[in-house]
Amino acid sequence: MIRIFVTGGTFDKEYNELSGALFFKDTHLPEMLRLGRSRVGVSIGTLMMVDSLDMTDADRALIVDACRQAVEPRIVITHGTDTMVRTARALAEVFPSGGKKTIVLTGAMVPYAFGSSDGLFNLGSALSFVQVLTPGVYLAMNGRAFEWSQVTKNRETGVFESRS
Amino acid sequence: MIRIFVTGGTFDKEYNELSGALFFKDTHLPEMLRLGRSRVGVSIGTLMMVDSLDMTDADRALIVDACRQAVEPRIVITHGTDTMVRTARALAEVFPSGGKKTIVLTGAMVPYAFGSSDGLFNLGSALSFVQVLTPGVYLAMNGRAFEWSQVTKNRETGVFESRS
Amino acid sequence: MIRIFVTGGTFDKEYNELSGALFFKDTHLPEMLRLGRSRVGVSIGTLMMVDSLDMTDADRALIVDACRQAVEPRIVITHGTDTMVRTARALAEVFPSGGKKTIVLTGAMVPYAFGSSDGLFNLGSALSFVQVLTPGVYLAMNGRAFEWSQVTKNRETGVFESRS
Amino acid sequence: MIRIFVTGGTFDKEYNELSGALFFKDTHLPEMLRLGRSRVGVSIGTLMMVDSLDMTDADRALIVDACRQAVEPRIVITHGTDTMVRTARALAEVFPSGGKKTIVLTGAMVPYAFGSSDGLFNLGSALSFVQVLTPGVYLAMNGRAFEWSQVTKNRETGVFESRS
Repeated sequence: MIRIFVTGGTFDKEYNELSGALFFKDTHLPEMLRLGRSRVGVSIGTLMMVDSLDMTDADRALIVDACRQAVEPRIVITHGTDTMVRTARALAEVFPSGGKKTIVLTGAMVPYAFGSSDGLFNLGSALSFVQVLTPGVYLAMNGRAFEWSQVTKNRETGVFESRS
Repeated sequence: MIRIFVTGGTFDKEYNELSGALFFKDTHLPEMLRLGRSRVGVSIGTLMMVDSLDMTDADRALIVDACRQAVEPRIVITHGTDTMVRTARALAEVFPSGGKKTIVLTGAMVPYAFGSSDGLFNLGSALSFVQVLTPGVYLAMNGRAFEWSQVTKNRETGVFESRS
Repeated sequence: MIRIFVTGGTFDKEYNELSGALFFKDTHLPEMLRLGRSRVGVSIGTLMMVDSLDMTDADRALIVDACRQAVEPRIVITHGTDTMVRTARALAEVFPSGGKKTIVLTGAMVPYAFGSSDGLFNLGSALSFVQVLTPGVYLAMNGRAFEWSQVTKNRETGVFESRS
Repeated sequence: MIRIFVTGGTFDKEYNELSGALFFKDTHLPEMLRLGRSRVGVSIGTLMMVDSLDMTDADRALIVDACRQAVEPRIVITHGTDTMVRTARALAEVFPSGGKKTIVLTGAMVPYAFGSSDGLFNLGSALSFVQVLTPGVYLAMNGRAFEWSQVTKNRETGVFESRS
């Protein structure tokens, strides 16, 4: 059984057709897992629905705490890409490599509700990596898994890259 | 660098709007990797474009041979779901668990070109599993990875399940 | 109030992920009208769900009869493209140009359930033409409206053309 | 031959995956006409790419002037929904009902690039209405055609309604 924590991010943004603005309503995770015909046992919990640029230290403490209380040793967190590394660092202080939990953060560059989203690919990737990686905190983006301390988001290209 | 071999299957079926029949044209793999913003180094080769129910022993021999000649230790094969296990068995005779190559077969229940395809999810999953699993032959379907000898496709439900 | 009669056709075909065949389940008309944010008053009735190549004379008689019994003067019929002209001819014998009913047949080259369908465009077109055309029997395809006796489907290109 | 003038609006908005903001790039009109398998002769010109809330009097003067210079008697204008009625009024001062040109404005509540857009339906509708309506200025939204002076956008529901 894998625990999935939803925190919002581009993944779950929708288009408000009255205001023309992007906003959060419900998570698309269950629908995405259905589309992927996933048969991985999961338990989904929504912790918050925020743009990761708006995520506070209190929000991060809440995420860390939720992971601490989770009985499952394997956890996927959906998260905005802009501060994903920062949340990963906060998690790594509590869940070290070689510890007891494998935590994989993932997200999307384009909302799932839009035609051209990378969300379904990333979810398939994160859910797979979390099943086989050894304990530690990772990011799954662009088809790759990175140890949290080895990755940075290139803001020019939107691509997650190994730190040099 | 990961080698991807395309063999056809539901994954790549398209709708012929003149005849109303499903058929194969080109593979959608490059487009799918672009949509997933994949940055995994891959080299794609199309071995055949067939429905896996039409796959012959000669076709399977060709697939095995292509894997043998591949210099990459990690290989993903896109394949129709109906005889995926049979091709996996043919591969396992040459590439045993504990050998030198990690081979992951994947496919889709619904063509990628249709709205409701599981293809992008499965591709994200297969590409992730192949990077971390130890040598052997696996199927990646429904968000899970199965050792080839431990899995069967339930034809009533379309779901891949562990053999009891 | 506009009457919509559903008869099947490519419009409403779906993909059976267990058999890999195309088949009919329910009509997508209500979902399509919702997607188009249509506020045209409509009353939808499903007469049959068949490939128009399989449509019999009895089926056509049933369609003609349904139009006769409809109280609405404006009717849209969704129909397979292969024999759309033949059904239009059967209707025209009963509902002549200059009579009391405006009947517009429409369809799709690609099922609505697939990504690349022309269905929504054609539905918007047919629903618009039926509101303004004078009594008679028409086909609405490729963004145009044709009087039934002036059109033929070009089987090489899939395009509806004026008869020369 | 029908003239299509593009002015931007929700229709053509795209998602910038680096900034997370909506923006304009190129118009999707040619792609949409291709998807609809349209065989209506059209000539497309982009006048501007703006949110209709940002449209100035100078922009409206430019649209009116473009319609004046167009040799085609039938014109479709894609336009943001928020000030569509205002532009229609500016056009009606020059192109009265009973004049020489039939002008139909249309738009979308959801960008075409997003999964759930009404754009294709509206385009099919506008392109059909413009071929048959008598000279005057109209809005084609929600599957209906309204004379410009008889319609208002309900901002609570996003629906275009007859003025009472």
